[in-house]
Amino acid sequence: MKDESNLECPIPHSLSDTIQLAHGAGGRQMRGLIERLFMPAFANPALLARHDAAVVELAGARLAFTTDSYVVSPLFFPGGDIGKLAVFGTVNDLAMAGARPSFLSAGMILEEGFPLRELERVVASMREAAAIAGVQLVTGDTKVVDHGKADRMFINTAGIGLVAHNLEIAPRSVRPGDAVILSGDIGRHGIAVLSVREGIAFESSIVSDCAPLAAPVQRLLDASVELHCLRDCTRGGLASALIEIALDGCVAIEIDEDRIPIADPVASACELLGIDPLYVANEGRFVAFVAGRDEERTLRVLRASGVCPEAASIGRVRPADGGCVTMRGALGNLRVLDLLSGEQLPRIC
Amino acid sequence: MKDESNLECPIPHSLSDTIQLAHGAGGRQMRGLIERLFMPAFANPALLARHDAAVVELAGARLAFTTDSYVVSPLFFPGGDIGKLAVFGTVNDLAMAGARPSFLSAGMILEEGFPLRELERVVASMREAAAIAGVQLVTGDTKVVDHGKADRMFINTAGIGLVAHNLEIAPRSVRPGDAVILSGDIGRHGIAVLSVREGIAFESSIVSDCAPLAAPVQRLLDASVELHCLRDCTRGGLASALIEIALDGCVAIEIDEDRIPIADPVASACELLGIDPLYVANEGRFVAFVAGRDEERTLRVLRASGVCPEAASIGRVRPADGGCVTMRGALGNLRVLDLLSGEQLPRIC
Repeated sequence: MKDESNLECPIPHSLSDTIQLAHGAGGRQMRGLIERLFMPAFANPALLARHDAAVVELAGARLAFTTDSYVVSPLFFPGGDIGKLAVFGTVNDLAMAGARPSFLSAGMILEEGFPLRELERVVASMREAAAIAGVQLVTGDTKVVDHGKADRMFINTAGIGLVAHNLEIAPRSVRPGDAVILSGDIGRHGIAVLSVREGIAFESSIVSDCAPLAAPVQRLLDASVELHCLRDCTRGGLASALIEIALDGCVAIEIDEDRIPIADPVASACELLGIDPLYVANEGRFVAFVAGRDEERTLRVLRASGVCPEAASIGRVRPADGGCVTMRGALGNLRVLDLLSGEQLPRIC
Repeated sequence: MKDESNLECPIPHSLSDTIQLAHGAGGRQMRGLIERLFMPAFANPALLARHDAAVVELAGARLAFTTDSYVVSPLFFPGGDIGKLAVFGTVNDLAMAGARPSFLSAGMILEEGFPLRELERVVASMREAAAIAGVQLVTGDTKVVDHGKADRMFINTAGIGLVAHNLEIAPRSVRPGDAVILSGDIGRHGIAVLSVREGIAFESSIVSDCAPLAAPVQRLLDASVELHCLRDCTRGGLASALIEIALDGCVAIEIDEDRIPIADPVASACELLGIDPLYVANEGRFVAFVAGRDEERTLRVLRASGVCPEAASIGRVRPADGGCVTMRGALGNLRVLDLLSGEQLPRIC
């Protein structure tokens, strides 16, 4: 399914190396770690599908199962907090398998001395987010480590959802001719977190796009859109999501820069900070790869869903050598998008 | 199902307080946090069952779902390491619901600078443990935080298992007359971790009891033993497991000190350190509450399973006011066992 020659992830070089921030950044080093260490260790069909959630069979049912740890700093940011992120993030990973999110677990690691009042705020936020997303948090665990051994609070959530369709929504289902649909404007989450972390006040306040994505995905399924792959554009942003799919699906993707919605304040902030918005994390945006003939219908369904008014068709899968993402600029120039090397925005989720 | 009057967990006093190590210790403060903060926030039947794993229905099947984060320090100890613990610990929480463990997730939080060689050791250990326990690790996540913001490595695992029986294995199913069966000798894990952490060399080396428990539980199910409740004796040890069940099941439990197996080196180490072995963490021991008439059969099945040669019947559930655990000493004296207040052995799992 995968063409290793396209991988070009030379890290880890050697096991005498140490973990760097980049190993968790969603870019080249993280992919190297996954491909060289985790995949060989745990090789099984569900893991090898390389998707946001594993799809497994149990008692005759297809279930999606996923996990994410959240280490965002600071814990509270414009438009959200670690609790909301921990619920919606995992709900979204289930949605990206086309699953209906059902149950969540929550594992908290707390630093000794963390204020109970802040814990209460985070728990209230998780409760509200779970209600909005229609999931039940049914099991949990709390660990406390001595002061200085963790940074305030980390949360892991795992989630289970029911896969009630027969599609195989995964990178390997992507085909030349597929339309690439982006669900909304990009870059809000990363810039919102960065602004509060660095104490930068932009002209207009930028709020995280943190939101649950199961409802618009369900609309696409209900409309029988031929979905080939879905991916939320979190760590590493839109560019990394596309590159991962190009690599894992062995396809060539071409997108148009002009057609990618970016809000003016986000564009200005990125310019000011020298950051490429294509690589900035989102927490409420996804790309859908759909059969070319379903392009217009996908846009109509998403725009009518109430949560994706800016959904846009940004490109196509091309019949060319796989593993490559190119972006056509306003002047017709072609730029090859690469996985980021190093870490741009640590602890963004 | 629960009698709040028996709870006696006055913490958190006020939300101006801060998190203490005791909030993660499996004792009084942790129970207070769960009962006062988490339970009201996420009240649902699965969570309110107060068991190691939630049992939920999905697509007509009964599934067990659980999570635990592992923050043990040091990462490697006699008889195990954080990876083995993270696999067996979550497998065991599924087993305690009488579920057949099927799938695990793994979320790693790594500190920048953590040696890749040690990560490789942990991953190899997880792989081996998963193979032994017959579970597939199908989904994962890696986050990296800056140096000094976490202590080397934390692992969260969540697990899904199939509940293929119709029993309700939970504290509320415990009845007067039930026999209390302990699967083996206690205290090894906590003392093993403590010995290496504190650099204490005991006369004989004490090795963690870390082991998967799904197989002996399956044997009990196959033998149609009338299981009422199962609980592994992890944080807070045997005593805390019994007290939790007494509180949540509103039952009185009486155990005999003489009948609790403790290896001599563990007993000596506990005496030397001034630690009560009843409260020391185990990672491969459980208590089973079974219908009184099934006492002998339970012992036979466990002893024949190959992994519980020292299984012992240690007490009975009494027809008395609930929420209480008493222990009869060698001289006939009765001691009431209380949830620990404060933290005895931080970061034991």
